[in-house]
Formats: sequence, structure tokens, C-alpha cells
Amino acid sequence: MASLSHQEITALLLALGVLLAGARVLGELARHFNQPAVLGEIVAGILLGPTVLGQLAPKFSAFLFPAAGGGALALDGLMTLAITLFLLVAGMEVDLSTVWRQGRLALVVGLAGILIPFALGLGGAWYFPDLMGGDAGGDQLIFALFIATALSISALPVIARTLMDLNLYRSDLGMTIIAAAVFNDLVGWIVFAVILGLIGVGGASAGIAATIGMTLGFAVFMLTLGRALIHRIIPWIHAHASWPGGVLGFAMVLALVCSAFTEWVGVHAIFGSFLAGVALGDSGHLRQRTRATIAQFVSFIFAPLFFAGIGLRVNFIAHFDLGLVLLILVIACLGKVVGCGLGGRLAGMSVRESWALGFGMNARGAMEIILGLLALEYGLIGEPLFVALVVMALVTSLMSGPAMQRILRLKKPRCVVRYLRPKAYLPALKATGRQEAIVELSRALALSAGLDPVTVTEAVLAREALMPTGIGRGIAVPHARLDGLAGPLAGVGISRVGIDFDAPDGCPAMLLFLLLTPKQDDGVQVELLADIARTFRQRDTFEQSLQAKGFTEFIGLLKSNDE
Amino acid sequence: MASLSHQEITALLLALGVLLAGARVLGELARHFNQPAVLGEIVAGILLGPTVLGQLAPKFSAFLFPAAGGGALALDGLMTLAITLFLLVAGMEVDLSTVWRQGRLALVVGLAGILIPFALGLGGAWYFPDLMGGDAGGDQLIFALFIATALSISALPVIARTLMDLNLYRSDLGMTIIAAAVFNDLVGWIVFAVILGLIGVGGASAGIAATIGMTLGFAVFMLTLGRALIHRIIPWIHAHASWPGGVLGFAMVLALVCSAFTEWVGVHAIFGSFLAGVALGDSGHLRQRTRATIAQFVSFIFAPLFFAGIGLRVNFIAHFDLGLVLLILVIACLGKVVGCGLGGRLAGMSVRESWALGFGMNARGAMEIILGLLALEYGLIGEPLFVALVVMALVTSLMSGPAMQRILRLKKPRCVVRYLRPKAYLPALKATGRQEAIVELSRALALSAGLDPVTVTEAVLAREALMPTGIGRGIAVPHARLDGLAGPLAGVGISRVGIDFDAPDGCPAMLLFLLLTPKQDDGVQVELLADIARTFRQRDTFEQSLQAKGFTEFIGLLKSNDE
Repeated sequence: MASLSHQEITALLLALGVLLAGARVLGELARHFNQPAVLGEIVAGILLGPTVLGQLAPKFSAFLFPAAGGGALALDGLMTLAITLFLLVAGMEVDLSTVWRQGRLALVVGLAGILIPFALGLGGAWYFPDLMGGDAGGDQLIFALFIATALSISALPVIARTLMDLNLYRSDLGMTIIAAAVFNDLVGWIVFAVILGLIGVGGASAGIAATIGMTLGFAVFMLTLGRALIHRIIPWIHAHASWPGGVLGFAMVLALVCSAFTEWVGVHAIFGSFLAGVALGDSGHLRQRTRATIAQFVSFIFAPLFFAGIGLRVNFIAHFDLGLVLLILVIACLGKVVGCGLGGRLAGMSVRESWALGFGMNARGAMEIILGLLALEYGLIGEPLFVALVVMALVTSLMSGPAMQRILRLKKPRCVVRYLRPKAYLPALKATGRQEAIVELSRALALSAGLDPVTVTEAVLAREALMPTGIGRGIAVPHARLDGLAGPLAGVGISRVGIDFDAPDGCPAMLLFLLLTPKQDDGVQVELLADIARTFRQRDTFEQSLQAKGFTEFIGLLKSNDE
Repeated sequence: MASLSHQEITALLLALGVLLAGARVLGELARHFNQPAVLGEIVAGILLGPTVLGQLAPKFSAFLFPAAGGGALALDGLMTLAITLFLLVAGMEVDLSTVWRQGRLALVVGLAGILIPFALGLGGAWYFPDLMGGDAGGDQLIFALFIATALSISALPVIARTLMDLNLYRSDLGMTIIAAAVFNDLVGWIVFAVILGLIGVGGASAGIAATIGMTLGFAVFMLTLGRALIHRIIPWIHAHASWPGGVLGFAMVLALVCSAFTEWVGVHAIFGSFLAGVALGDSGHLRQRTRATIAQFVSFIFAPLFFAGIGLRVNFIAHFDLGLVLLILVIACLGKVVGCGLGGRLAGMSVRESWALGFGMNARGAMEIILGLLALEYGLIGEPLFVALVVMALVTSLMSGPAMQRILRLKKPRCVVRYLRPKAYLPALKATGRQEAIVELSRALALSAGLDPVTVTEAVLAREALMPTGIGRGIAVPHARLDGLAGPLAGVGISRVGIDFDAPDGCPAMLLFLLLTPKQDDGVQVELLADIARTFRQRDTFEQSLQAKGFTEFIGLLKSNDE
């Protein structure tokens, strides 16, 4: 068996480490600025790829991410595995009953989302092949068909990731988008297989009719009989195999075999693992814990690796033709956003939702790049058009999340951790009575934020006098609404002796959260109170938080308790 | 960037799926027969590799596991990643305080475990090079040095896996073995780097002195300053990054970067990730949940893939020289078992423990194969010797677990699930009183096992009369010891109305376990009672088990509740 050289192994491990580190850090940064993590991950790849690092340190870059040889192939194999497993998780999250409910809608949106960009692309490439970067020597019809397909495909992985990032994945809108995207992409890949058949390449191991037939047959099988079989097999595995290795192994084997099958059939591997995920995730026997183990490992390790890997593939500066890029971008967005939006309106969605749908479906991401790569390899398109397609894929992917966020006016529920001020963290309150404690904590929080301590203290005491703020389980949440605050402020005090806050369970409070919220913002106080109650639902969290060494450890504890 | 072809992707995904399926199924089978899972996993690889599948279906085998080309390299890259991550998990499980306590012992054992096989190998290969398969043309000293190194190295991954399978990993003996093996292998790899330097290959990117210096420096750094840094960083990540993605990503990046470093230095990548794991696992801030996610995914997906992959590497029949194989095997076992056993005795261990230690350290597994592959590539050894080394590596790995199990007389605590009889699963008891319930259940269990119903019923009723068997939380465990039983028997009955078994908490029993145990086996009754109490510690399990649809689902539920 061929094996990697010493140097290739070193480079591969380092490359994976650097890529994952970059993707995770920029992904977190993107989230920090309320952007989807996938944005940061792709940018990390561009920074580490030929576009930036390749220019600044060409030798190191060539060592880390070799263009050819064993290391490059091994990395490509890993990326394929990563995207396959990511689609397994995306599939597991699909709620089939919602999809059925959204079925008609998804069909209309999916159809409109293909036909309009397809027509635009076919027309444009047929009448103006030179403008579209067409190769004069090639067959004009095939070129036009390819452009049309390239413009009408979307990117299931990016769309799924964006929807997950926005917490929209399991919503009705999210499931409509996913169902439409699956439909859309299946048709797109089948058309592409037809094109490959026309130029006599035969990416598929079987004929075109066989590809279409087997794809549909497989999808139907997985969603009916396969699903039922899996539902029966899981309890059997629980009963006879070790836990949780049995189910974990089964899920992986299923995903791998299904994706190998669809790849063999001639559509992309990701459809197989996606369908495997859908069938698997639908079984009520699959334990929450197993789902979480797979989802966490894949979403936080494999997915960032793959999305960062996209940025590695091209030098975006060397092969850049501004006119072509803009043209492709405009036609792509126009066709997709208008097409899907129109489909949404036709199916009776609101204007706002239709726009969101259009932008959601507009992301092309990895699929476009894979399609472009294949077309480039088979000589269907030239380099400038390839770069234009990749840029279009990235831009549409990047704008998808923010656009949906803005259109739907999404806001995440606010957490108290975000507003806690380090200087208002008092790990050892001196006070032993309720009033003194409020005075001590109010003073610290007011000073940390440049407010007048007296005003703050009086407001909190006045509120406390109306109704005591002990919420039980050793926690009290004194609070007040203040005029002229820019945003919420929070402080926390820990009392070793316990202070009576007249809680319903009679327990003295050891953990005191002081909340100051702006008078004009009604919702935030309720959100923060709910967040505190939720965070301390587990007794462990409360006890550990009393023993935290320092502010960072304290908020680390609060943030890492999701169980 | 180079990428895999359509056919290579298909083959890679299918190969991974088949390999994982084979490894998991045979691994489970091995466990079923009380053997370590790793045995089944390696056998799965041999069956799927050139030795069996390659002979039966050469074309399919060549498609699935190509000997060269992109697919082979991608698979090799994945295997490297798999072994690296497995060593991360092995490292995370190390209990540093135990290792320090065992430090002197481990040093003595490690030294004796190197010196004796090294001397045996050096002498044998120096005086009888022809017998040992030496190449007449090569340098005799270098050949002798290589044989000596090959005989004195052990296989940290296989040893770790075997100890985990036997539930010995965190015991004093287990930690001694691990510490000695780490010491042993570090020395072995450094000697190998010296040999490569002597023949002018320079597997290391730096000189020999630099390799030794940097390896030791890195190990010391990771176990002191690195460990302290990681302990500080984790709460910061909890506080500032998303959960649990922040810590998961950090652990992976750390493992990848450290393993790239040690690979670059010239010792194998696995030392880096092992040390990263030790440093990481030692931090009390690392949550149990994060450990479990990493450990489960790696132990049940990556590790089986890697261990099955070993079997793929050679055709064990074509290059087989019985005399050479036996010679190598005998010298290897003699040197290692005697050397380590002697070391153990010297350090004051009991005879039994010393033998177990010797057989534990005797496993050569993957390390030997990697070493052999490198030696083969560099022309140090010929094919027959390579096969002999591989067979020796496999045989020593395979006998390690069973030998330790027998020497230490290990028994796993018995679980009630193993003895439940399908025909004594009564999901709807007709009885409403205690006596009737016992009669109904005893009858079913007795008939299912071919015993006399009357004798059984009387014995259980007599025992119940001595002291009621309600254990609270809705569970009762009527039981009896019988003469002449071959092994324990268990039945279960579910009462929808609840039957009074005089439990300490006063709750009527809805779940009734009937246990019949052999009179001569004192321990089993206690073990089974403890197992039932442990299984139902979580209220969920109890409620779900009442609603199970059928026997398989019922035992599946019991087995999959470890939380």
C-alpha cells in the first residue's frame, strides 16, 4: 500500500491544525459580530490559501498546502469525508414531518428557483458567449447548458450551515428552504450528469437514464423502507452491541456506504449521506446523546475544516476578471433571488419571507466550486470563468446569512453573561443583610459603568421594596430599570454566609445577580431573568460557580453549561 | 490543488464504510467472547486485505483498496490522522499522579524491557545474520542494530487499547505499563532515528542530537509549562468561545500541531498527540462531557478504522517464511516478556503482576509495522523479514490481552441483561398481588429454562417471606439461589397497576426482576442486584422501560443507559 512520506505527514498534520485553528478563531469572531460562523471559516481559508499566505510566504504555503502529490490528495480525501459527514448531520436535523407539510411550497420554490436562473443562464450564454467567458472552440450548446446549470444550482451545505447559525434550521421557513434546495440540487446534478454524458466524459459509471432512475429510486427507498428498517435496527443495536459504539459505528457506516453509492451513481456523494442522515435522524430510537456526539464532533471539527478548505483552492487575484465576475454575480443573484422569491410569493408566503427565501437559496458555496472544478478539468470552461464562478459562489454564500438576518430582523435572546462587568464581580460580599448587599453590589456596578452610585442604589432598593427578588435555589436577582442607559448592565456578588432575599423556597441567597436595564427596552429584563433561571437549572452549575477562581472562570462556567 | 477522481472518491468512501463495518462487527464479536475489541478489528483488516479478499476477489479488492494512486494516499493520510487522534484520547486518559507514583517502577521496567530484547536482538543478528533474514550485501552492524530496535519497541496504541478493553487502563498496573511503554518507545524511536542517520537517510529534518534534545525538551515542556498553560486557557475558552465547539476545536488543534511537531523532529507523530492528550486530560477544567464526546468519536470510529487498516498492508501468505517467523516470534517474546517481567520483579511487583506486565508490554502492533515499513523502504531489510516482523507484531498484540486476562484472572462484573430470557419477559403481568406475581413470573422463567416450576416458585416465595424484595422507585427483585443451576437466570415482569412489595419508599413495584442464581456462586446475586440498582438510577430509564415495545427494545434500553 502506498504511504505518505515523512515530510508529507508533517505537512498534512500541521496543515490540518493551522486550518482548523484559523477556521475556529475566525468563525468565533464572525459569531461575535453576529455573522454566521461559516463566513469566518471561508475567510480563514482565503487568508491561508494562495490568495494571501501564498503571496506572503510562498515556500511555507507550498509546504503546508502542496498543489500536487500525496499530501494534496490526502487533504482532498479528508475534505471529501468532511463534507460527507457534515451532510449526514444536516440530514439528521431535518424534521421530515415539517418537510411533508411544506412539500407543495418547496416544490414550487424549488422549480421556480431552477427554471428562472436556468433560462437566464441559457439565454445569456447562447446569445453572448464571448461576454460570458465562453471558449470559442467548444460546443456552444453544451457551454450554454453548463452556464445555465451552474447558475441554477445552490449549495446545500452552506445553506444548511447558515440556517443552523441563524437558529432557523428547524423552523418552517428553514425546512422549506432545505427541501427546495435538496430538490433543486438533485435536479441540477442530474442535468450536469447529462451534460457530461453529452460531451462523452461520463462522470457517471452508468448511463444517464440509469443515473436518474437510481437516484430517484434510492431517495424513495431511503425515505420509506430504509427509514423503517433503520428504525427497527437501532433498538437491536442498542440491545446487542456495546454502547454508544454500536450506534455511532452504524451511523458512520450508513453515511459512508450511502455516499459511496450516490457518488457511484453519478450524483455527488453528499446526497447519499444527506439522505442517510434524514432516515437516521427520523428514528425516535436514536438517543439525544448520540445525536449530540456526532453533531458536535462534525460541526466543530469537520465542517470548519471543509469550509476553510474552499478558500485554499484558488488564487483569487491572479485569475480575476472584474467584468466577468460582476456579470456572473448579477445574473446569478437576479435569477435565483427573483426566481425563488417569486416561487415563494406564488405559494402564498409573505413578501418578507419570500425575500429571505430568495437570499437563503442564493448561496452557491462548495457545490458551485465542485461543479466548476469538474467543468474546468473536462475543458468545458476556462480559468477566468472558473474564478468568476468561485467568487460568485463565495459572495452569494457570504451575503446569504446577513441578508436573511436583516430581512427577518432576527435577534438572538440575550444572555446575562454578555453584560456582566468584571469590576462588578464580587466573589466575597462583605454584606450580611439584604440592604447592605444591594448597596455594596449597586455601588460596584455603578462605578464600573460611570453611573451615579446613589441613584442606582435607590432605584434597586425601591424595586426590592415592592417585591423581594429571591428566586429560590440560593439565587437572588435584584434589579431596576433606569432612564438613559445605553444597554443592560449586570454585576454578580457571592455571599459565603447566605443572605435572606425572601425566596419562595426559604433558602438564603448565596449568588446575587444585579441587573440594570434601559427603561425603554421592555423585553431585556425578562430575557435576562429567564436566562439566569435556565443557566442554574442544574444544581452543579450553582455549586461550581460559587467556587470559581476569578471572573473568567466564572463566566466560563456559566457559558459551558448547556446540559 | 490536486483532487481525487470520481472513481477514487467512490472507492474511498466505500472502503471506509466496509472497513468500519467489518471492524465494528468483528470487534463486537471479540468482546462477546471476552476478547479485546482490537483483536476483532485487526482480523477484520486481514479478512478485507490482500490475504483473504485480495485472493477471493482480486478485482474488487484492487478497486476498494488500491495499492497506489490518490485513493491509497488519501486512505494512508486518514489512517495517520486516526492513529494520531487515538493517541490523543489515550493520553487524555492518563492519570499523571498515578504515573508519578509509579515513576521508579516504570523506569526500571522500561529499561529492562529495552535492554534485554535489545541485547538478544543485537547478538542474534550479529552472530547469525543469515538465520535472521539479513541481506548479505548490507552493513552488518546497521542490520543488527535495526533488529535489536525492532525487537525492543512496543506498541503504545495497541497496549493502550488492550488495557482499555480490559478495564485496566487507569489502574496502577495499567499506568505502570503505559509509563514504561512511553519511555520504551521514545528511546526506541530515537535509536531508530540514529540508525537512519547512520545510513545517511535522515528521516529527521534535524540532526540526531537535535532530535533527542528537542524530543526531551518538548516532553518536559508539555508536562510542566504546557500543562499549566492549557489549564489556564480552557476556562478562557469556555468564557469567550461557543460551547462546546471552542474546547473541542482547541483539543484537536493542539493534538494536530503537537503531532506535526514530533513528526518533524524525527520521532513519530503519535508522541506529540499523546503528550498533548496527557497535558489536556490533566486539567480539571476539561468537562466530562467534552472528554466523552472526543473519546467516543475517536474510540468507536477512528480507532477501529486504524486497527483494521493494519491488516490491509500485507499479503500474509505470499511472503511467509515459517522458520523466520517462528524465530523472530520466539526471540521477541522471550526478550520482552522476560525483560519486563524481570524488571517488574526487580522493582518489587508480585510474580503474577510481573508476568502480566511482561505480556502487556509484549504487544508490538502498529509501531512495529510502521518501523518495518520504513526499514523496507530504505532497503534495511527484505520482504520475508518484513512479513515476519508483521506477523510477530500481530501475534504479540493478539496474545497480550488474553494472556493478561488469564494471568490476572480478570472477570467483568456481570449484568442482568445477559441473563434475561426472552420467554420470561412478561410485559403485562396478570397478577395484582405479590404472591400471584411471583408465581406467574417464576413459572415463566422455570419453563423457559426447563426447570420444575413448583420448586422454583417455592424457593422464591420462601426467600420473599424472609424479607420483602421491593427496592424502591417502583422496582422489586424477588430472587432465590438454587442447587444445580449452570448459571444465573433472569426474568422480568411489568405490572401496569403496581404491586406492593413492601419497598422502603412505600411505592408499589411496576417492574419486577426475578433472579435465579446457582447456590455455589456467591458473588453473582450481589452483582446482579447492584447492576439493577445502577441501571435504574435515572428515572427516565424506568419510565421508558415500562413503555418498551418488545423484548429487544427493552434490553436495548437497559444497555444504552450509561448516563
